Amino acid sequence: MTIALYTKGWNQNQWLDRFRQMLPNHVIRSFDEIDDPENIRYAMVWKPEPGALALFPNLEVIFSLGAGVDFLLNDPDLPAVPVVRVVDTDLTNRMSEYVVLQCLLHHRRSLSYMRFQQAGIWMDREDAAAKEIRVGLLGLGVLGQDAAHKLSVMGYDVMGWSRSPKTLDGIRSFAGEHGLDDMLSQTDILVCLLPHTPETEGMLNLDLFKKLPRDGALGGPVLINAGRGKVQVERDIMEAMDEGLLIGASLDVFEEEPLRDGSPIWSHPNIILTPHNAAASSAGALTDYVVKQLKLHESGKPMESVVDRAVGY
Amino acid sequence: MTIALYTKGWNQNQWLDRFRQMLPNHVIRSFDEIDDPENIRYAMVWKPEPGALALFPNLEVIFSLGAGVDFLLNDPDLPAVPVVRVVDTDLTNRMSEYVVLQCLLHHRRSLSYMRFQQAGIWMDREDAAAKEIRVGLLGLGVLGQDAAHKLSVMGYDVMGWSRSPKTLDGIRSFAGEHGLDDMLSQTDILVCLLPHTPETEGMLNLDLFKKLPRDGALGGPVLINAGRGKVQVERDIMEAMDEGLLIGASLDVFEEEPLRDGSPIWSHPNIILTPHNAAASSAGALTDYVVKQLKLHESGKPMESVVDRAVGY
Ligand SMILES: NC(=O)c1ccc[n+]([C@@H]2O[C@H](COP(=O)([O-])OP(=O)(O)OC[C@H]3O[C@@H](n4cnc5c(N)ncnc54)[C@H](OP(=O)(O)O)[C@@H]3O)[C@@H](O)[C@H]2O)c1
Ligand SMILES: NC(=O)c1ccc[n+]([C@@H]2O[C@H](COP(=O)([O-])OP(=O)(O)OC[C@H]3O[C@@H](n4cnc5c(N)ncnc54)[C@H](OP(=O)(O)O)[C@@H]3O)[C@@H](O)[C@H]2O)c1
Repeated sequence: MTIALYTKGWNQNQWLDRFRQMLPNHVIRSFDEIDDPENIRYAMVWKPEPGALALFPNLEVIFSLGAGVDFLLNDPDLPAVPVVRVVDTDLTNRMSEYVVLQCLLHHRRSLSYMRFQQAGIWMDREDAAAKEIRVGLLGLGVLGQDAAHKLSVMGYDVMGWSRSPKTLDGIRSFAGEHGLDDMLSQTDILVCLLPHTPETEGMLNLDLFKKLPRDGALGGPVLINAGRGKVQVERDIMEAMDEGLLIGASLDVFEEEPLRDGSPIWSHPNIILTPHNAAASSAGALTDYVVKQLKLHESGKPMESVVDRAVGY
Repeated sequence: MTIALYTKGWNQNQWLDRFRQMLPNHVIRSFDEIDDPENIRYAMVWKPEPGALALFPNLEVIFSLGAGVDFLLNDPDLPAVPVVRVVDTDLTNRMSEYVVLQCLLHHRRSLSYMRFQQAGIWMDREDAAAKEIRVGLLGLGVLGQDAAHKLSVMGYDVMGWSRSPKTLDGIRSFAGEHGLDDMLSQTDILVCLLPHTPETEGMLNLDLFKKLPRDGALGGPVLINAGRGKVQVERDIMEAMDEGLLIGASLDVFEEEPLRDGSPIWSHPNIILTPHNAAASSAGALTDYVVKQLKLHESGKPMESVVDRAVGY
């Protein structure tokens, strides 16, 4: 059973070693070492070139080495085999850390207080209480649900939106097009944890920002995006900030990554940028999960978290 | 029944109006309007001058208009009547927002990422997971227990220290002198929510910082103090930062407030300063609580949160 491994931008040898240790009965090769493509049964990949996987005629399963699979489903030549993504509590916890941190940063106006500190000014203003702040989550999947729960423990008034309706304790849930407008009209902090699909592409645009209330407890809406960069239109975010349709943002993901030099996002005083590391997951947890799925498959059992290619995530 | 009101630095007239509305059958006077000190039965105060309360010979109860009472108990001429402090869920929630925010800020190295952003650098480093980070709380009272619970939901490994031993779900508890050293030796982030008393004064000093481990998941210890400024020795905090005994701090309270111009704390790159507003509480909640205690007293029932003057909080 030969496995093809591709880890764009990561230390490929470390990953080879790791998987070889855990799967001593498999042959594991990096893409550029493969001279017998017909023997490849499994591919474990992070961002291979489009078309690269089509070179393996006997492929059985494709394992994404991350939570997202947009890079795979955007490949027009993707073989018609199951695609499995990573679901990992370690990653989920880290994402919720990011979401709670960014909500608190904007809510408690930390950037302002840091500027006061730098200027040597002792300035106390009254902040809203968490319960006065409505947080609307786009996406109530593995990540969205965990973030929603933790935001709710922190006292926020939490809502969430997904494709299929959900019933979650203490969270107001919305679904579908109509549900979206309903939630947006009451959202002070909008948190995007959506996958990138044809439906979600470019969704975070000026039209949407105009639907957010400008008279909420924070004095205007805040956007947090840790889903995928292609879900946002960066030109529109900048315009919305200029026009006061948004008063702050935290962006972990970008249309193009790394964010290009010269993007005005770098220097905007009210945008907090992180380099797509909201939920860097530990290599150990990731390897464990992929190996577990492979073993399920080889023992004839159903794998967890097989992607629904029709809906795109 | 005449009530004397003193609200140092706050808008006194607003507070007079507020209490007069809620207590229409009482006469309420600001300190400087009082010409019949013998008629004063209750004092509702925030930081009156030492000796000021001794002028009321028939005082029955002193209500602190905040959670802390150090400013009262430090008055050598304080009348020997019950002192009642404010306990308020709104204040408690805000304090936990502050504590969780500051832990996440240091843990997720937000100051570094902000500097990278300002320099236009896309730099991803791996952060520790919350479960690898041991948070030690000094003080497990109303505020400490709520913060401990929320930190624990966020995934941190949480410990707490108090005078009397506690049993709390999922929190490792320590008490007394020996318990303190035990907790300090395993603490990555030290959060102080202690009152200022003769025992706690100056406790956050170089001797204590030396007991914190330097090889933890954050690469060194972090101090967060939102209790009282007099519990910390600012000279020692600066020295500990210089020597790497501390790698970061968040301070909401100071030996002298506002923090004096020229203090090196203002400009330290790894200290986050806030102007004693970690838990600014809403005026409404505060008034409600004080009025509720007064009514309990007048109907002959025991008041909640009467301070134990022997221990000082
Ligand atoms: N920044 C980072 O470091 C990082 C790390 C990991 C993941 N991510 C991103 O986070 C995304 C979410 O991860 P996850 O594990 O939570 O995924 P998931 O479990 O598949 O959840 C996706 C959620 O989005 C909703 N959704 C998808 N398309 C929708 C549409 N057109 N309209 C309404 N709702 C829609 C889904 O609705 P249903 O519940 O109805 O299906 C679901 O609630 C990943 O796809 C990835 O792009 C980012
Ligand atoms: N920065 C702000 O905005 C802000 C706002 C509100 C309050 N505060 C400060 O926060 C403090 C705590 O508030 P709280 O409502 O949590 O008070 P609390 O309920 O009275 O709790 C105080 C805690 O400190 C512990 N403690 C006191 N002296 C000790 C000692 N010598 N050794 C060990 N433990 C000791 C107590 O131990 P036991 O449990 O054994 O009694 C208790 O756990 C207040 O006193 C105030 O100074 C600051």
